[in-house]
Amino acid sequence: MSKIIRNGTVVTATDTFAADIIIENGVISSIGTGLETPAGAEVIDASGCYVFPGGIDPHTHLDMPFGGTVTADDFESGTIAAAFGGTTTIIDFCLTSRGKPLSTAVETWHAKAEGKAVIDYGFHLMVSEITEDVLEELPDIMDEEGITSLKVFMAYKNVFQADDGTLFKTLLLAKEQGALVMVHAENGDVIDFLVEKALEEGNTDPIYHALTRPPELEGEATGRAAYLTELADSQLYVVHVTCAEAVRKIEEARRKGVRVYGETCPQYLTLDQSYLDKPNFEGAKYVWSPPLREKWNQDALWGALWNGQLQTIGSDQCSFNFKGQKELGRGDFSKIPNGGPTIEDRFTILYSEGVAKGKISLNKFVDIISTTSAKLFGLYPRKGTIAVGCDADIVIFDPHIKRTLSAGTHHMKVDYNAFEGMSVTGEPVSVLIRGEFVIRDKQFVGSPGSGQYLHRGRFPQSGKLPGKKPAANSLI
Amino acid sequence: MSKIIRNGTVVTATDTFAADIIIENGVISSIGTGLETPAGAEVIDASGCYVFPGGIDPHTHLDMPFGGTVTADDFESGTIAAAFGGTTTIIDFCLTSRGKPLSTAVETWHAKAEGKAVIDYGFHLMVSEITEDVLEELPDIMDEEGITSLKVFMAYKNVFQADDGTLFKTLLLAKEQGALVMVHAENGDVIDFLVEKALEEGNTDPIYHALTRPPELEGEATGRAAYLTELADSQLYVVHVTCAEAVRKIEEARRKGVRVYGETCPQYLTLDQSYLDKPNFEGAKYVWSPPLREKWNQDALWGALWNGQLQTIGSDQCSFNFKGQKELGRGDFSKIPNGGPTIEDRFTILYSEGVAKGKISLNKFVDIISTTSAKLFGLYPRKGTIAVGCDADIVIFDPHIKRTLSAGTHHMKVDYNAFEGMSVTGEPVSVLIRGEFVIRDKQFVGSPGSGQYLHRGRFPQSGKLPGKKPAANSLI
Amino acid sequence: MSKIIRNGTVVTATDTFAADIIIENGVISSIGTGLETPAGAEVIDASGCYVFPGGIDPHTHLDMPFGGTVTADDFESGTIAAAFGGTTTIIDFCLTSRGKPLSTAVETWHAKAEGKAVIDYGFHLMVSEITEDVLEELPDIMDEEGITSLKVFMAYKNVFQADDGTLFKTLLLAKEQGALVMVHAENGDVIDFLVEKALEEGNTDPIYHALTRPPELEGEATGRAAYLTELADSQLYVVHVTCAEAVRKIEEARRKGVRVYGETCPQYLTLDQSYLDKPNFEGAKYVWSPPLREKWNQDALWGALWNGQLQTIGSDQCSFNFKGQKELGRGDFSKIPNGGPTIEDRFTILYSEGVAKGKISLNKFVDIISTTSAKLFGLYPRKGTIAVGCDADIVIFDPHIKRTLSAGTHHMKVDYNAFEGMSVTGEPVSVLIRGEFVIRDKQFVGSPGSGQYLHRGRFPQSGKLPGKKPAANSLI
Amino acid sequence: MSKIIRNGTVVTATDTFAADIIIENGVISSIGTGLETPAGAEVIDASGCYVFPGGIDPHTHLDMPFGGTVTADDFESGTIAAAFGGTTTIIDFCLTSRGKPLSTAVETWHAKAEGKAVIDYGFHLMVSEITEDVLEELPDIMDEEGITSLKVFMAYKNVFQADDGTLFKTLLLAKEQGALVMVHAENGDVIDFLVEKALEEGNTDPIYHALTRPPELEGEATGRAAYLTELADSQLYVVHVTCAEAVRKIEEARRKGVRVYGETCPQYLTLDQSYLDKPNFEGAKYVWSPPLREKWNQDALWGALWNGQLQTIGSDQCSFNFKGQKELGRGDFSKIPNGGPTIEDRFTILYSEGVAKGKISLNKFVDIISTTSAKLFGLYPRKGTIAVGCDADIVIFDPHIKRTLSAGTHHMKVDYNAFEGMSVTGEPVSVLIRGEFVIRDKQFVGSPGSGQYLHRGRFPQSGKLPGKKPAANSLI
Repeated sequence: MSKIIRNGTVVTATDTFAADIIIENGVISSIGTGLETPAGAEVIDASGCYVFPGGIDPHTHLDMPFGGTVTADDFESGTIAAAFGGTTTIIDFCLTSRGKPLSTAVETWHAKAEGKAVIDYGFHLMVSEITEDVLEELPDIMDEEGITSLKVFMAYKNVFQADDGTLFKTLLLAKEQGALVMVHAENGDVIDFLVEKALEEGNTDPIYHALTRPPELEGEATGRAAYLTELADSQLYVVHVTCAEAVRKIEEARRKGVRVYGETCPQYLTLDQSYLDKPNFEGAKYVWSPPLREKWNQDALWGALWNGQLQTIGSDQCSFNFKGQKELGRGDFSKIPNGGPTIEDRFTILYSEGVAKGKISLNKFVDIISTTSAKLFGLYPRKGTIAVGCDADIVIFDPHIKRTLSAGTHHMKVDYNAFEGMSVTGEPVSVLIRGEFVIRDKQFVGSPGSGQYLHRGRFPQSGKLPGKKPAANSLI
Repeated sequence: MSKIIRNGTVVTATDTFAADIIIENGVISSIGTGLETPAGAEVIDASGCYVFPGGIDPHTHLDMPFGGTVTADDFESGTIAAAFGGTTTIIDFCLTSRGKPLSTAVETWHAKAEGKAVIDYGFHLMVSEITEDVLEELPDIMDEEGITSLKVFMAYKNVFQADDGTLFKTLLLAKEQGALVMVHAENGDVIDFLVEKALEEGNTDPIYHALTRPPELEGEATGRAAYLTELADSQLYVVHVTCAEAVRKIEEARRKGVRVYGETCPQYLTLDQSYLDKPNFEGAKYVWSPPLREKWNQDALWGALWNGQLQTIGSDQCSFNFKGQKELGRGDFSKIPNGGPTIEDRFTILYSEGVAKGKISLNKFVDIISTTSAKLFGLYPRKGTIAVGCDADIVIFDPHIKRTLSAGTHHMKVDYNAFEGMSVTGEPVSVLIRGEFVIRDKQFVGSPGSGQYLHRGRFPQSGKLPGKKPAANSLI
Repeated sequence: MSKIIRNGTVVTATDTFAADIIIENGVISSIGTGLETPAGAEVIDASGCYVFPGGIDPHTHLDMPFGGTVTADDFESGTIAAAFGGTTTIIDFCLTSRGKPLSTAVETWHAKAEGKAVIDYGFHLMVSEITEDVLEELPDIMDEEGITSLKVFMAYKNVFQADDGTLFKTLLLAKEQGALVMVHAENGDVIDFLVEKALEEGNTDPIYHALTRPPELEGEATGRAAYLTELADSQLYVVHVTCAEAVRKIEEARRKGVRVYGETCPQYLTLDQSYLDKPNFEGAKYVWSPPLREKWNQDALWGALWNGQLQTIGSDQCSFNFKGQKELGRGDFSKIPNGGPTIEDRFTILYSEGVAKGKISLNKFVDIISTTSAKLFGLYPRKGTIAVGCDADIVIFDPHIKRTLSAGTHHMKVDYNAFEGMSVTGEPVSVLIRGEFVIRDKQFVGSPGSGQYLHRGRFPQSGKLPGKKPAANSLI
Repeated sequence: MSKIIRNGTVVTATDTFAADIIIENGVISSIGTGLETPAGAEVIDASGCYVFPGGIDPHTHLDMPFGGTVTADDFESGTIAAAFGGTTTIIDFCLTSRGKPLSTAVETWHAKAEGKAVIDYGFHLMVSEITEDVLEELPDIMDEEGITSLKVFMAYKNVFQADDGTLFKTLLLAKEQGALVMVHAENGDVIDFLVEKALEEGNTDPIYHALTRPPELEGEATGRAAYLTELADSQLYVVHVTCAEAVRKIEEARRKGVRVYGETCPQYLTLDQSYLDKPNFEGAKYVWSPPLREKWNQDALWGALWNGQLQTIGSDQCSFNFKGQKELGRGDFSKIPNGGPTIEDRFTILYSEGVAKGKISLNKFVDIISTTSAKLFGLYPRKGTIAVGCDADIVIFDPHIKRTLSAGTHHMKVDYNAFEGMSVTGEPVSVLIRGEFVIRDKQFVGSPGSGQYLHRGRFPQSGKLPGKKPAANSLI
């Protein structure tokens, strides 16, 4: 069943041009003007719309257990919402347990996604210890599962937190194997103490979540991870960068030629610490780790996106209902499940706040929302762009629509929207994955389980450090 | 007369993919797999080759008078050599004279190019004074001639040098009119004194050209220009950045969100100050301003290209024969005509030293050699990429060829090659401009005068400065 | 006539201790406990007081012509006020005229001071051109007059402003001769334009004085001067540093080992840009160049004093009456005479705002208010400290007094006080110069003309730049 | 028994002047010219000599167990050597053991020193855990023992290393109690791994000691400690800073107003990493932690001393014989006892390499060698300067002597000299402690046990952070 998308403005991370696109067997076969409609092809009219590559969300937590509860969205509701929002691929975090084979964890995550996901998906793997067993198993997991990114936590003491030795060993392994190390960069030791102290002093409201995780501790950990990466001559991806302190550390490392990449999230670009002070415990809705920051940090984040020092945007989707879940933290902010529902609005927020307000160009938008994530995480060229030979993961986006984000209209299975009431410009009207509609004229037309698991490629093992021996060529 | 390029690997600033390209009326009409050959179309086989957008050289001086002599290459020999080297567009500098209408200078430059150029070309305009007359004339020149970039010299005291007030006024005008200000950033006052002092002390050899123009004076002037740009909320393009000092100043400004862009040149990426010490006055061949630097600076330049803090590469082509021209400076380095022959090898050197040696990716190569220059200088989307609707300016590049750069084989009309003896990887085998071959299987098949003058667009007047009022959207 | 000061707490830039001081022939002869009163010596009781070395004000303009008028205070009223305020030495600026011998200017300044000054004084020399004549005359002036500091203006276009070549030549001369170059660091070219533009646009109020001299232009010029100093391997003293931008540039240079020193003024530490917005043209009272800045810059200045990156405090005394003088600028801010009355309160403000509020230590206070100025300007060890062999320039300071600064009580001959209404802690109760009382129990007991001219020593010609050839030892 | 020192040139951290000094009851009672010799006083002639305050060495390890052996020098030989070298006070590290009362450790250290030390001494306390017991005991130790500085190790995993939570808690405690936290700043986790890996790979020579402790890991840990200090609004002293990376981190923190101080050591100022490559296992003599660095780092250290960003010099004396002790590490560099004999030559090396070679001034020398250590560690004004009321700890130093450092002539009980063969300028000829000769005309005339234990004062609890609420005044 071939298709032709006519009359749209195609946008890639480099180019903006009027052209039609022919899709055959789920793949883009031609892009051109005056193309004949292939026999039997369906014609899709994209007049007045941008034709974007599907969004890639490199950071989601669906169906994830956390502190005795589980996220409100699973792979079904979560990926349906993602699709509505213009996202066609996610990479979810597979949590491992110390002492158990990694493969067990991967199997668990496959089970969560299969039969449910309506968009394509891959997995990152969490690493909290590097034992002989793990060292032995990791290359197999990379080969067999195509899981080529490893997450290390510098925070969540006594839960996920790895020590610096483990982080360093992971970086060395990543260099050798062609993997990308991801870090949650906050100093867990000090946070642990600050939380304990706050609670002892009776400071139990949501705002203390922010006050016990100050930006200095994110800056510190980001700098530390960058130093270890430099020393290991490896590569690093800092998830959810929130503040100027952390941005500066990434810039410093990159200035030395160290391959450090940074991701921010829509919440850090638009919300701020004052939200945690909302009355009636509503502040709990805005509990993320790292926390929302003072508003002026937003300029640093936008500036770094513009200047290429942050490269991607992840949702860090991790939704919990206010009722019954966020409420677990009444009287003790440390018991508030961390995270929020952002998978659906990530794409439009970056467009509306970034492009429509003139902070980033249309092409930079595509680069951030899709292309660079594909390249960093071994999905390119299958995903991440509109070019001949790629999967036809396409978003038809109407930039003229004005609308208001709200829990009343969103598609996530969670009882609030983090951006409630925000006016935005633009909306994905139709979304195709591998040439098939998932969203058509704002209606969900896909089916659970149609999303495919993505076996991802390795990180190009290039020593790009100027002044050091370069190795192979690299995509990024 | 349509054409189809088959079997190549198409490369843009974002994408790398196997596809065929159909060219109709000089424009790319389709890109795809399995495309039918249009009736009567010529089939070009690009097997084993990269299909790149034609190189854009944003910085040339052809047929330029300098110190009583004139460059060895004019618009004919210069553009033929450029074409051999994979460059399909140049932007040359139109030198104005104080007290004369700008239009006179533009007419002179048109006369130099017409009937000679074999590739497309545009002009930058030099500004050394901002008088009432100039203020009145500039918007007309922009409209009528499409000259939307203005060069200001901070060096060459008593010749081209403008004072800071003039630079600042130019920046304000550029902001208002949508132009891009280019600076030659060296402190001319101090250089003037150092040169005088060196000559007085009998230090007349070519190496003193470098020693009287130390990197501190480039760093200083770069920082100064960036400050004035910040204050004017305007945009700046620093030509021929040579050293770490200057790179750091550009980075500093960009970190604050100031729209400062930087260009380097092949000579600064590969040669160094020691070349000026070559015996038998041979050092004179390597006299550029700013001068070649100590070798360690090359890492800073490559690093900044990788990290997006330098965005383009210009040749700064300005060729003088060693015999009879460079020799004018025997006994007085200050009389050595500044500049060298680089227009032909710019493209291959960036590929060979950058991509083949793993310092930058293939896509970054295209970005630097072509795309970003097109965007910054108002040539996009007509030039600078391979996308539907663009001019079919295409380089078919064989990355497997190994060859040696030499005056014996180059096509410039100058008696030496700046990169004599350098082994490089890759060669443009065929080059098309607006769909017509200029170089075919390494032979020149174009004709003088076939190059077209390019009326360029304005710089997008976007205030991208985070935290300040953004204006319209922007390409860059 | 010898004296003994008993029961005070002696404070130097290093030490704080209880001791008595014997003064003989105007010089400190002994410091000790249990000292016998020399025969015939006068006993001064300093119980409950600090005994400080007399303040040195390295930056005053007394009896100075400016824009057709002359400062309200001359060497008589100015030095009397200084003495009341705890200052026992000033260095005033001797303005030269282009084309006239430097000696003429020096004679003029001697004539202004002689018979009037009640405290000791020296002169700096302004350099706005470096001609053959100047080069020849300068070493003589240094020898004969002991004028070893040269002021260069980067601002005041077409009045005092020197170009970068002149600044650089002055730096080289200073290195060779052992002089210290002082700069007024603002970009005069751009300011000149901004002022003109503001006036054209009808923006004539005092606040436009500040808005047409933005901090970027001070940062720029400071960085430029530092670069030229680095290149000349010379020494630089930046007068009246007002803002974070400029402090950062001084820090950068010093981090490279460049001998750059910085002075701030009491007004920049305590007042801010909003003062220029005072109604009824009162803003004119607060017109200094560089202008007062946004308040947050004060933290950067205090921080730099604490951290040794700014080393001195000058008053930049340059008083004009509000009536009849400041008023010249009604309707045209550019005609407001620049400067204010600060010579009297400099000492107490630094104590009160710095020491009493815990920002700097008592010893650092002495260092800033006196010692380092003495060392930098060739007055040490005669002036600047309390040590055996030094001039007995001594301030007996009662730190328990609380008072309010006001034109109603000050001793300057000017009709307003820049710090009107400021509550301060501490007051100089008695002041001795060379062992003689000038102020005794808050009464003036000196006589005009008793101040001596100070023939100052050369700047130690030490190349302290780490990694470069060090020369002789140095005091600073 | 009073004394009078005549004809010397007295030098303090601020002043240099000719004067005589009267000592009574071990304390300086008067400084002056023309002082009468007190009845019965001994007259000491210091003609041609500098009269310095006695050196304070804030970092020694005498009689210290390390890896199954004990340092070659104990409190007797060590303090005798110190005295010969011009040092009159040391502060030694008292090592605590987890789970045991701090008082036990203090008692052990008292026992080591009593009856042996010939100069005055204090103790720092090592903190590797902050338990309830420790929290309770520490204020008592501070009160009773006058131990007001706490050392935390970020390296030596599984031996001394504390985690970040412990460091942070110590910083908070220090702020509250008025103590100064000292850190050994290296990332122990990563070093531990690198050492293990090197040994596994058969890299056992001394040079691998340096290669497994790269400067990035010192820079990282220094930055981390500074961040935690900023967050705690406390004060930090970084011991043995060796490299540019670490200096930069200290500068960054101080630029923000954070009270971070840094110490370097004579070995880092004069020796370099290449020493570890000496043949015949001689490299083992140069094994310190952190290790000697590449030579260019020395410029950064000297520059930071000049610029006040490093404030003190400690010897880090920790001597082991080459025979029998250093040799324990043959075949396994990790078994080489860390440290070297430096207590004796610290003073002269700083003078000779710093002052005599023009890198720092004479007054800065005194500041670094004595005064600032006294102020930081609660010994001022009793120690650290020459002023009325201070202990008469005095070094009579002849700057004209040229000599060669050597194990053949030194007074430490160790079989090699770390600076063997170094030519130096200057020598302490006589040394007095509390007015009594310990060294007289280069002969030891003291007696074991004459050194007194120093009960030290608290760190002034001043919040000097500009922009934050300042507290009390401060000495530093």
